[in-house]
Amino acid sequence: MEAVVLLSGGIDSTVCAAIAGRTSGFNQVAGLNILYGQRHSKESGAAEAIAGHLGLRVFKSITLPNELFKDAGSSLMDSASDIPYGPYPDNVGPASTYVPFRNGNLISIATAYALKLGAGTIYFGAHAEDALNWAYPDCTPEFLGAMKNAVWVGTYHKVRLITPLEWLTKADIIALGNKLGAPFELTWSCYQGDAKACGQCATCLSRLAAFKANGLDDPIPYQSDLEGGNV
Amino acid sequence: MEAVVLLSGGIDSTVCAAIAGRTSGFNQVAGLNILYGQRHSKESGAAEAIAGHLGLRVFKSITLPNELFKDAGSSLMDSASDIPYGPYPDNVGPASTYVPFRNGNLISIATAYALKLGAGTIYFGAHAEDALNWAYPDCTPEFLGAMKNAVWVGTYHKVRLITPLEWLTKADIIALGNKLGAPFELTWSCYQGDAKACGQCATCLSRLAAFKANGLDDPIPYQSDLEGGNV
Repeated sequence: MEAVVLLSGGIDSTVCAAIAGRTSGFNQVAGLNILYGQRHSKESGAAEAIAGHLGLRVFKSITLPNELFKDAGSSLMDSASDIPYGPYPDNVGPASTYVPFRNGNLISIATAYALKLGAGTIYFGAHAEDALNWAYPDCTPEFLGAMKNAVWVGTYHKVRLITPLEWLTKADIIALGNKLGAPFELTWSCYQGDAKACGQCATCLSRLAAFKANGLDDPIPYQSDLEGGNV
Repeated sequence: MEAVVLLSGGIDSTVCAAIAGRTSGFNQVAGLNILYGQRHSKESGAAEAIAGHLGLRVFKSITLPNELFKDAGSSLMDSASDIPYGPYPDNVGPASTYVPFRNGNLISIATAYALKLGAGTIYFGAHAEDALNWAYPDCTPEFLGAMKNAVWVGTYHKVRLITPLEWLTKADIIALGNKLGAPFELTWSCYQGDAKACGQCATCLSRLAAFKANGLDDPIPYQSDLEGGNV
């Protein structure tokens, strides 16, 4: 096995999986999905379908103890808090949907898994707009750079962390994924985790705008086509 | 709460807890113990006793899914592999007891936990001899430096990773802990995880030599006083 892709089932990780497959061969890639108690655990089924569609050699799902991230004030984890509607706010600092040091944990688990499989690379799909205004501090180039060093040194130079979307906008990622044949119709992004995507939370708005910027339709169904703006 | 100490129940983390308590007040410190499937899970009971003895405000134990680190070739995890007797070998590279990227995982979990408690510091007890010859690449100053950056940036400057034993030998740590009144009699180090410490694995030999270098007796019982060299 050559590579492990952190595969959430969203757009960014799906495009990462397509990049990894084109680089190493799809039968040399393992998709790793991690359930950490998020509301939108529906992503996990999407991740499995995407791994199957792309022909990844392995799909593995790991469930973490709920207590790791619960009750830390993240609206992504605690059903008592509402997921905010509308785009990400302009103020500087973590979004209400920031899950405490989630990506440090996900990358560390992926590193252990890569060592077990003998895979020399991990792909992680953080992108430029995640980092904007420090909405997700654990998506910034500064964080990712530090983790790249930690992974490389802490594995005795056996595993390298690769973040091919680090400097791309969501619209750039849609364009790239479209070129690579990423199965966008199988992805799930909405934070709400209902039957259909809400079309109103920050992550729905972000993907809708990114498809539109490319002159494309978002192929997934939304709760209301009017609200989704997809008609 | 001011600080979280990763408390394995061994000597290093016990001395770290004593340092954290002297710095912040023992009632401002939480001890975090993580069970990751290690053979010597007996350490966990030791950790709890140490937290009680020191008067830490909180003792929390988290059990990770076994699959995270199993079957990755570490003799610390897989009962099919033997724990080697004798001191750490002289060759350069990871010891057979290296658990894949374990410390990246432990530090990441502690960071999430610190954010939840509102604690601004994490103490982690890696020491200079862990790093020697890259026996544990995830104990080296290079790894710890990278993780310090990752933790600081990835928490939006809310949590700082502190490693007060990074440049100390085991003998230095015994001397320091002795001065601070660390309860060495409650600690557990042996990798074998039997009723009494084996006195022959690398970690037993290391602590026995370190007590001896300080003109002290190791207060824990060994399987054979002759083998343990403690008489």
